[in-house]
Amino acid sequence: MLPTVKTSTLREKFPVLRAIAYLNAGTDGPLPTAAIQAAAAELEREAEQGRAQRHFERRGELSSDLRSAYASILGCPAEDTALTSCTSEGIGQVIGGLELHAGDEIVTSDEEHPGLLGALAAAHELREVSIRMVSLGEVAEAVGPRTKLVACSHVGWMSGSLAPAELADVDVPVLLDGAQGIGAVPVDVGVLGCDAYAGAGQKWLCGPDGIGMLHTTPQLRERLMVSRRGYSNLGQPNAGLQAGLHEDARRLDSMSLSAESVACALAATQVLGGPGWLAVHECSCSLAALLAERLAESGREVAPRDATTLVSFQSPDPPAERARLAEQGVILRDIPGRPWLRASVGAWNDESDIERLLSGLA
Amino acid sequence: MLPTVKTSTLREKFPVLRAIAYLNAGTDGPLPTAAIQAAAAELEREAEQGRAQRHFERRGELSSDLRSAYASILGCPAEDTALTSCTSEGIGQVIGGLELHAGDEIVTSDEEHPGLLGALAAAHELREVSIRMVSLGEVAEAVGPRTKLVACSHVGWMSGSLAPAELADVDVPVLLDGAQGIGAVPVDVGVLGCDAYAGAGQKWLCGPDGIGMLHTTPQLRERLMVSRRGYSNLGQPNAGLQAGLHEDARRLDSMSLSAESVACALAATQVLGGPGWLAVHECSCSLAALLAERLAESGREVAPRDATTLVSFQSPDPPAERARLAEQGVILRDIPGRPWLRASVGAWNDESDIERLLSGLA
Repeated sequence: MLPTVKTSTLREKFPVLRAIAYLNAGTDGPLPTAAIQAAAAELEREAEQGRAQRHFERRGELSSDLRSAYASILGCPAEDTALTSCTSEGIGQVIGGLELHAGDEIVTSDEEHPGLLGALAAAHELREVSIRMVSLGEVAEAVGPRTKLVACSHVGWMSGSLAPAELADVDVPVLLDGAQGIGAVPVDVGVLGCDAYAGAGQKWLCGPDGIGMLHTTPQLRERLMVSRRGYSNLGQPNAGLQAGLHEDARRLDSMSLSAESVACALAATQVLGGPGWLAVHECSCSLAALLAERLAESGREVAPRDATTLVSFQSPDPPAERARLAEQGVILRDIPGRPWLRASVGAWNDESDIERLLSGLA
Repeated sequence: MLPTVKTSTLREKFPVLRAIAYLNAGTDGPLPTAAIQAAAAELEREAEQGRAQRHFERRGELSSDLRSAYASILGCPAEDTALTSCTSEGIGQVIGGLELHAGDEIVTSDEEHPGLLGALAAAHELREVSIRMVSLGEVAEAVGPRTKLVACSHVGWMSGSLAPAELADVDVPVLLDGAQGIGAVPVDVGVLGCDAYAGAGQKWLCGPDGIGMLHTTPQLRERLMVSRRGYSNLGQPNAGLQAGLHEDARRLDSMSLSAESVACALAATQVLGGPGWLAVHECSCSLAALLAERLAESGREVAPRDATTLVSFQSPDPPAERARLAEQGVILRDIPGRPWLRASVGAWNDESDIERLLSGLA
């Protein structure tokens, strides 16, 4: 028996679900009507009233509200939450900001996303940091005397596996790539025991491209060098070379997030938060488990996974099958370098979407 | 006699001009109706069709078109033009990306914006780089044996003064902060002789907050370390740690610019480029000169300026007078730390806006 948050009322808030079996939130979530209306309303206000003092006050209020909304989903204070443009930017702030040197090591897993691998490649090329790559389940035990950071997925993007709980106990800083975590599964950065958690607003939180968030503990944050500075993160922007950075996580804020993007992301969290996050998560995970079961029954091998919202499964030709499904109005993605298609299952989906996928695959 | 680009036809494209004497493009330009419609259309498409393969192709096409549009205004190839989120981000890419060490020096001016000063403060704090500050007119001759970079305004944000032409001949890299340059006055990066030019999309190009551009020469670009990497700037994003950066200026692209923001910025350039940039520039500069003349006649001391679109002038209490003018529907800004109000004059303004300002000041 599936939880009941996924009523027709929730589905109706997402226009894409009218005609499409949309199973792609792991790339970009479905945008709710309320979110695009919120963006349009901000743009109209800006065009009608101009963008001066009141505009920047409004932008500040929206940012403050979004920061609080994201912080409550992360389970941390707003003061520890920065607003970023995407997961990769948050990851770059941490890996690029730590003082690392030749001989230092970062432990990561062998199923990471280009956004994390890019930052690791930069640390290797520019600072001669060693990258030690093990399976996601082994990242905690791989920590050694030269390890200065563990940087890996909270939920692996390829198959939906979970980072090991033992990461909470390692004695080096831990950065989690939460792109497939926040909004998809319950997140409590205290329980995870991570020092930084970088997430996306446009995936499981159904916001616009270009908005994300970064949680950092005060202890880690004070170690991070911040080379990009401007109005958004300076404490006293008009104090010239003495402007200084904000004391709290705003020092890691992205440089220019528009009012319309922030309003769009905020409205999306309100649509989802309405039925309550726990119900959203339970519904998404149950439906994903049902899909995994049905796929296995239909003879498709499901990639090893945990209780998350991603379901990857064997395909004879993933790009071709993805394209064929798209023509039938079933949208998911293929995983480069693996023989898999990946379905992303959210509380906005229902059994009809699963049936459409299964019959498209038959 | 003023040039005639500023017809009622152009004014009608900007809703804010219906009721407001909007003289604030140096902060954020007026948004044209076509730009907010373009953003709304993208958001509706995303909400209706979802965001998968075709969405990212569409985003790529829009980015390519915007890159070409900005490149043509800068007078450089698209391959030398990165899309950024704002001027400050472009500045940070250059100053943060150069390999600078203790004892190296950056020459700058004493009328720079927090977005440049922030990056300079970071270079000083994090890498012990010396910052040598002289008047804008003297930046070229201030270059000495320890100077590794000149970083200053193309057009000073406080009073509208121009960087000296002699910068084209200095033998160290030159980074121009073009926030008050591009879209306001003719820009030709070849004639300016700069190695990098960072500009804003939301000011004189009337785009949304969150979009800007960065020109770099190939010679400078290959010296810049790029620590933030993701889908937007990796050459082969699925090649793991070997993904590598794009060879051209896309390696400096911001990490996540949304299709709606890019479409909005692109539509704005098309509104302005319609009458032709030369006509836009002539009109703006002539009208600004007229305002400066009228202000002087009315007994207001005008700050020293060049043939640009900014007109700063003495005010007994700039914040209070700004607020009083705003209540009368005249929008401009005060300059922190100087006894000035600053009016920004664009081709979308006309003599009625100037009259409203003058009578508001009387």
